[in-house]
Amino acid sequence: MVSVNHIRGASGTILRNAQEAGRLTDGRAMTYCVGIWTRDGLVMASDSRTNAGHDQVNIARKMHTFVQPGERVFILLSSGSLSCTQSIITLLKRDFDQGKGLAQAPSLYDAARVIGEQVRRVSDMDRDALERDDFKFNVNLVLGGQVRGESPGLFIVYPQGNPLQASEDSPYLQIGETKYGRPILDRGIRFHRTTLEEAAKYALLSLDSTMRSNVTVGPPIDLLAYGVDEFEITRLRRFAASDPDLIKIGMRWEQALRQAVGRLPQIRFRARRPAEPSQLPAAETIELVEPGVSEPAGELQPQAKPPSS
Amino acid sequence: MVSVNHIRGASGTILRNAQEAGRLTDGRAMTYCVGIWTRDGLVMASDSRTNAGHDQVNIARKMHTFVQPGERVFILLSSGSLSCTQSIITLLKRDFDQGKGLAQAPSLYDAARVIGEQVRRVSDMDRDALERDDFKFNVNLVLGGQVRGESPGLFIVYPQGNPLQASEDSPYLQIGETKYGRPILDRGIRFHRTTLEEAAKYALLSLDSTMRSNVTVGPPIDLLAYGVDEFEITRLRRFAASDPDLIKIGMRWEQALRQAVGRLPQIRFRARRPAEPSQLPAAETIELVEPGVSEPAGELQPQAKPPSS
Repeated sequence: MVSVNHIRGASGTILRNAQEAGRLTDGRAMTYCVGIWTRDGLVMASDSRTNAGHDQVNIARKMHTFVQPGERVFILLSSGSLSCTQSIITLLKRDFDQGKGLAQAPSLYDAARVIGEQVRRVSDMDRDALERDDFKFNVNLVLGGQVRGESPGLFIVYPQGNPLQASEDSPYLQIGETKYGRPILDRGIRFHRTTLEEAAKYALLSLDSTMRSNVTVGPPIDLLAYGVDEFEITRLRRFAASDPDLIKIGMRWEQALRQAVGRLPQIRFRARRPAEPSQLPAAETIELVEPGVSEPAGELQPQAKPPSS
Repeated sequence: MVSVNHIRGASGTILRNAQEAGRLTDGRAMTYCVGIWTRDGLVMASDSRTNAGHDQVNIARKMHTFVQPGERVFILLSSGSLSCTQSIITLLKRDFDQGKGLAQAPSLYDAARVIGEQVRRVSDMDRDALERDDFKFNVNLVLGGQVRGESPGLFIVYPQGNPLQASEDSPYLQIGETKYGRPILDRGIRFHRTTLEEAAKYALLSLDSTMRSNVTVGPPIDLLAYGVDEFEITRLRRFAASDPDLIKIGMRWEQALRQAVGRLPQIRFRARRPAEPSQLPAAETIELVEPGVSEPAGELQPQAKPPSS
């Protein structure tokens, strides 16, 4: 598994259409969605980029909500072939509007099972035809929400339809291009301590890191916060690419990271002189020193050199 | 592609042996190595963990050096099946010690080609037998170094034996578990501006992020710095898991990240009251404000709530 950082230029890749994109990426979703569950509620965030040709990068909302005010709220994030996820959402909405399915699920677990049933239904309809032409059935969904009488919760529903629940020890779930945006979540999200405001900020930073390292993830960004027992969607914002707040938080984060690196202990080299008969122990050739500590006299310090090419 | 953050518990996974591990991970290397190329030289870093059973996590040096003092220096980082990479290194060393192969390559490009030939030779010897039992031939190598008369350079050699060179725009190359450690490199490494000391620090941070998010990457960490025209290995350090400097930089980075997040603009929610007839525009329900800005009176602010579960 090699990642060469030329991928930033991948926006120039020629993909014939959205299905072809799915084949070329071996089913890897060009999407990033994250759900964060804390004792105060949920933060859900998703990108909106779909690739359907290098001259046809489209926008598709990957966040879908199902609300019975005062009774139940479900927020669904989707990754995978847009054709398949659209079908699943369409079927879920049709049932919901008729008072069935998600409208009747007695718990969030049952809601996850209702969603899994629709995943399997669409899989039954489309999977054989897709696989015959080497496409994968690659739908993954994150479900956050609350049914009256329960606490909020967070699930992932896999392409096979089976659900997995987030836990206090693992209070967030991601789908799509998950790795770039994960280190910041690993460090920042604590079920019992992180406020919804902090979780929303971490979600934006996680998306920012992902967008920076993978061009197939991009704005607009949908960000939603749900507080315990609200049973209503009251805080939802779409950040366009040109949104000054989105640009600001990305730039400020870049600056803050560089400053943070600068304040860490510095690396100091003590090169052995090649001719030196008694070699320094290796451990002493690379040291950590606090910033601002002056260098001892007499050490061989590397000099910045002009480029020699 | 779903990443569930339960993977931190993956050290408990039962793998029969190292080959079986390769099959279970579908050829994904349980390794992280990075080479950074700047105008001042090279920084190379690698982890040392190999999984050969959950009760048999072994240490293998993934950094190999070939030096003719004053003439040529090659640093090779390896990922993939230890059986295959060992064979390749053994064959390269044997030739080198006899004054052939890497000892004679007239340029770093030719050295990358010499390595590619050995990759193909081991592939010819072992690939069919491996694939018959569903193992992948998954050797990836990073080559950094310098041949007198040239500038230093950095290559990747793929499992097929073909080389790819780092460029000033893409001055680092990674192999193995590359994604967790990439965002920090994307932000910090600039060919013309980053010093070797800074590059060494970024390499440690990149490894720290990777080790935190993937238990199959782990210490000891080998870190090497090579300055332009040194033609000798003078700065090399192995950080054990218990190394106070390694622990310190990990802890300090965690603290610094949290502080950096805290100094970013804060998220502020303005919840719409569910009964409110005229809805706020969605964009105004989630705002960014500078830290320390007081909240306007009369806004509905979310309260921290006790856990309701």
